[in-house]
Parts: sequence; structure tokens; C-alpha cells
Amino acid sequence: MPLSSFRAFEPALAHAAQSVERTMDHLLPLGEGGEARVVEAMRYSSLGGGKRLRAFFVLAGATLFKVAALSSTRTASAIEFVHAYSLIHDDLPAMDDDDLRRGKPSCHKQFDEATAILAGDALQALAFEVLAHEDTHGDPAVRVALVSELAKAVGAHGMVGGQMLDLVGSGHSGERALRRVHELKTGRLIACAIHCALVYAQPPAEVELTLRAFAGELGLLFQIIDDILDVEGSEEALGKAVGADARLGKATYVSVHGLDRARALAGEAHGRAQGMLAELPGPTDGLAALVDLTYARRH
Amino acid sequence: MPLSSFRAFEPALAHAAQSVERTMDHLLPLGEGGEARVVEAMRYSSLGGGKRLRAFFVLAGATLFKVAALSSTRTASAIEFVHAYSLIHDDLPAMDDDDLRRGKPSCHKQFDEATAILAGDALQALAFEVLAHEDTHGDPAVRVALVSELAKAVGAHGMVGGQMLDLVGSGHSGERALRRVHELKTGRLIACAIHCALVYAQPPAEVELTLRAFAGELGLLFQIIDDILDVEGSEEALGKAVGADARLGKATYVSVHGLDRARALAGEAHGRAQGMLAELPGPTDGLAALVDLTYARRH
Repeated sequence: MPLSSFRAFEPALAHAAQSVERTMDHLLPLGEGGEARVVEAMRYSSLGGGKRLRAFFVLAGATLFKVAALSSTRTASAIEFVHAYSLIHDDLPAMDDDDLRRGKPSCHKQFDEATAILAGDALQALAFEVLAHEDTHGDPAVRVALVSELAKAVGAHGMVGGQMLDLVGSGHSGERALRRVHELKTGRLIACAIHCALVYAQPPAEVELTLRAFAGELGLLFQIIDDILDVEGSEEALGKAVGADARLGKATYVSVHGLDRARALAGEAHGRAQGMLAELPGPTDGLAALVDLTYARRH
Repeated sequence: MPLSSFRAFEPALAHAAQSVERTMDHLLPLGEGGEARVVEAMRYSSLGGGKRLRAFFVLAGATLFKVAALSSTRTASAIEFVHAYSLIHDDLPAMDDDDLRRGKPSCHKQFDEATAILAGDALQALAFEVLAHEDTHGDPAVRVALVSELAKAVGAHGMVGGQMLDLVGSGHSGERALRRVHELKTGRLIACAIHCALVYAQPPAEVELTLRAFAGELGLLFQIIDDILDVEGSEEALGKAVGADARLGKATYVSVHGLDRARALAGEAHGRAQGMLAELPGPTDGLAALVDLTYARRH
């Protein structure tokens, strides 16, 4: 397994994660008045945990084009807020009904269902508020393009559509349907994290095309590994129940292809993603390390 | 009762409602693929019903400053999408548990809870996508300011915070707490609809202050009438169950003040709102008619 690069990046990743965590803490509202409960739930579910992979994708994409740290860190925080909202809503009893998330009770178990629904709703609004704020970028055209990119990625033909597909299609999906569920459910937000770099930098068309293709491979790689970990990962490392996909009868890369073939597909996606990086200008070692990390992660 | 003006405006209001409805229909995604179910739910809950009062507020505010019809109609649609999302989530069993909305089964009764949660989530994303799109305004600075205005209005210290307050505070609220719940829960989005006009036009400070104060009075007036209708309205006209506030033990202007005093407070808010309009430049007859309509509405 070509895991060379990301070990050397671990201190940098830890530093980046802390920086994003501090920024998220700063951007989240404080719990004042009677609405404190929803603010507590927003903080509970978005701070103090998580791999921050999507944040790393934003930051590493931004290093390609020398984007200012404040811009990329705030954008990364917005993406993480949306990710946190989606986990809160996906965990609800009416959806995937998960009691455990990031090693803690999921939001509706710690608080209650109403609070969890509202906390997710407010985290989505917060993500757009952060992107629209002038601290995120001096140029309003860039800020509004970030809003547009995120809104499309998470809507009915993006992340939410993917969750809908996942719910209605459980148990009767072939290879093509499986790929489409994941492209929407997890792939679109991961791709969006990479695409933010394009919004900042507006590079030549061939660079944009390569980076978009790279983002697609990264999303695919992420999902195959996720499906493998749901079978062979440990609940302790993952911080959530394993075997949930099988319990819900969901089609996954493992259920459709078997474990060995899923591992081979992950290896192929990893190889293609690394190959595409060679075609990009600027320093790609951060993105290369993240591809390795996505491939080799144990949680 | 000074209801003179809005009767004359009824044809214009009907025309505006049709125009907003057509625009919403055009902006909503089409149900393709497996995610069609969430798109159907979005369409079910946002089209073909509703008073469109918030849309009228955007349109009437825009007429003060000669804003282009495409801009104001798209903005009005975005506000209505957010309103529709909030109703879908508020009606869920974990929240207010309402089976009836706009004379039809509420979204989770017509579909299911998971679909209703996702439809609300996607409608919120759609609202921001619409505001960020260049068709809404040629100037990205205006578009991003609209996004910012809406995001703040609906977040943890806006509409969502108000719903949280309403849920945790049920049954033990005094006058001040009551006012704060409603300022957040319904007032902020209504005020946002009026504030959009300020984003387009950036009028002098004294005009902005007056229009902001007017928006506050309008939100208050709307809520007092809402509370009165929950007691003395008919289920047929309202399209939802009456007496829901009392059933949930919620503090309302009627439960705190009694019906007569609530009527008097509505009259005072109506008078103050109309008085403020005299201080504004531009044609205010549209807004004046809407103040009367808000006051005299039966549903």
C-alpha cells in the first residue's frame, strides 16, 4: 500500500484540524436565552470530533493556488458545518436511526429529536452565513460563487437527493445505482470541498477539468473505504456502530462486489487520483497525502 | 376597521401570487431518478397553496425602490421556499405534530417523516441557490447581501431559535418571553422579506431605520392576528387545525392578554405600521394594503 506521504503530514494535519476547530468554535453562536438548547446541540455535534477530512480537502485544494488562510479556513468550517448537519439528520430515528456518532450519543439521543432537527437546520443556515460574510473573501463575486457551489452540492440533486436515494433504494441496487447514490450522498460534498479552490483561483479550463475529475475519484475512493470499514472496521475506532449498512439492507461496494473486489476498486481509484495530481500545477503534496490518508484510514 | 385599501388591491395581489407561484414552479427541481420522491415532497409542500404574504412583503417593499420584477419575484420565491421548509419541519411529530397544513395532509403524512425532513433540508438549500444565482441580481454584492440577510434571519438566533424557544418554553411564558419567541419564530423572516428591499436599494439611513421599524410592527401584527385566528378562526378557512396553541399549552397573545386586549394590541400595531409608511418616500400604497390585509385576514 503506497502510504508513504501522509505519515509525514500528520503534524501538519493535526495543526490544520486544530485551526479549523478554533475557527468553527469562533463562528458558532453562543448559547444565550431560551434558544441556548439548540446552540448547545449545534456545538455538541460539530465540535470536538470528526476526521475533518472535508476541511483538509478545502485547505489542500487552496494550497494549490496560494489562497489566504482565513478564506480557506472559514470555507472549510462552512463545509464541516454542513457535514455535521447531515450527520445529525441522517442519524434521526426516521432516517438511519443511529444512536452513536463519533463515539458519543448521537444528537437526538443526547438532546431530543426536535432539538436535533433544529440544530441541523441552523447549522445549514450558518454555513451559508459564513460563506457570505466579507471575512471569507474580499470579493463578493467569490463569496456568492461559494454559496452557489455549496447550495447545489447539498440540494435535491446533491447530498439530500443521495440520502433520499439511499432510503428508497435500500436493498435493490445494482452497480450503477450504487454509484449514483454515493456520488450524490457523499461525493458531491467532497467534490464541493475541492471545487472551492476553483472558485478562489479560476484556473485555466484544463486545470479545472483535471481538478474536477480528481474530486470525483476522491469521493469514490472515500466511499469504497467507508463501505469496507463498515464491515471490517472496529466500533471503537469508528465511533459509530459497524455493520449498519448490512442491518439496513443497504447496497454497498462490499455487498455488491465482495470485499476483495471492493479493495481492488479502492486501489484503482487511489491510483487514478494520484495520477491526476501529476497534471496539476502548484504544490500537490498536500493533496497527495490526503489521497493516501483517505485510502489508508481506519476510521 | 380601516380595511379600505386592500380590497382594491385584490386583483393585483392575485396576479402577484400567480407570478410567484410560476416562478417557484420554474425554480423547483424536476423529479428525476430515485430522488424524485424528495422533489415531489418539495413541490407538494411549497406549491399550490399558502397565503404568499411573505412574497407580497418582498414585492411591495421592492416597489418602493423600483426594483426589477425578476429580482423581486425570485427573492420572494426564495423566502417562500424557506417558509415552506419551516412549516414542513414544524409539523413533524417531534415538533408541533400537525397532520393538516393548507387544507391538505402535512408533508410527513402525505409522504413519510424521512422524506419530510429531507424535503425541508433541500428547500432551505434551494432558497440560497436561488438568491446566489445571477438571474436574481446583476451585482454579486447584492446577491451575497441577500444570502447573508436570509441566513441570519433563519439561523439559531432567528427563525430556528424561535422554534426552539417555542418548544422549550411552552406553557410558562410571560409577556416579554412571548414577544421574543414571536420576534424570532415568525418576525425575523417577515422582517427579512421587507429588508430585502433595503439590500437592493441601499436607501439613506433614516429611510432604512423607518423601514426596519415598520418590518418589526408588521411581524408583531401578523403574529397577534395569527394567535387570534388560532382561537376564533375556522379550520376550513385556515387549512389547519385550530386550537393547536392551547392544546400544546403555548403562550400566545390571546392566552397571555385575553382576546379583547389582543385585538386592541393588533389595532395599535396596525396604526403604528400605517403611520410609519407616511414617513417613507416612493409609492407606499402596496405596503399599506398589505398592512390592512395582515390585519383583516381570516386565514
